[in-house]
Amino acid sequence: MPTNTDNVKSQMRKGILEYCILLIISKKPSYVSDIITELKNAHLIVVEGTLYPLLSRLKNGGLLAYQWQESVQGPPRKYYELTDEGRSFLAELDGAWNEVNQTVTAIKKFKV
Amino acid sequence: MPTNTDNVKSQMRKGILEYCILLIISKKPSYVSDIITELKNAHLIVVEGTLYPLLSRLKNGGLLAYQWQESVQGPPRKYYELTDEGRSFLAELDGAWNEVNQTVTAIKKFKV
Repeated sequence: MPTNTDNVKSQMRKGILEYCILLIISKKPSYVSDIITELKNAHLIVVEGTLYPLLSRLKNGGLLAYQWQESVQGPPRKYYELTDEGRSFLAELDGAWNEVNQTVTAIKKFKV
Repeated sequence: MPTNTDNVKSQMRKGILEYCILLIISKKPSYVSDIITELKNAHLIVVEGTLYPLLSRLKNGGLLAYQWQESVQGPPRKYYELTDEGRSFLAELDGAWNEVNQTVTAIKKFKV
């Protein structure tokens, strides 16, 4: 059982990190730094060491594909995008998120 | 990695079930049927077999206490209430939930 703040946050974050990553990539093909920056802007601090294996898993699961693109400076970059399967999965996640959100909102609103 | 809806929902639900239970008990001392009914009203279907061990864990963790109360009919009922520690923990969960919620909302709002 989580008995401290860090555990609780980590448990809640784990449930949504994958969702947030797919949401970001669904808007436009993104490379790792794009994703980290957007997560950071949304106050979710994620390091490359966490993100790389997660992206690999999503890719191996058929939810993401990538294309190499030249960059103005530095090495070419891997741009991730959603596959059709990834888009269906994201739709499911949207549904699950809405359900969870409505549940918490409903419980908070119930009168004693 | 979750690759079907049920897994995804279960992962998201796991993160919030404990939170919802503490929210319910924080409003008034509650016995198991009260809690199940409120969860059900919020469209979170939880069976007694799931709830009992969770309540025991929360109690053993010092977050809940209970008192026996006579019922008009049937056996006496265990009414759960939050301890001081439980209230602090719930405040932490409120904070974690707000963070997660703001993160998802922010990512959904970002422009491409």
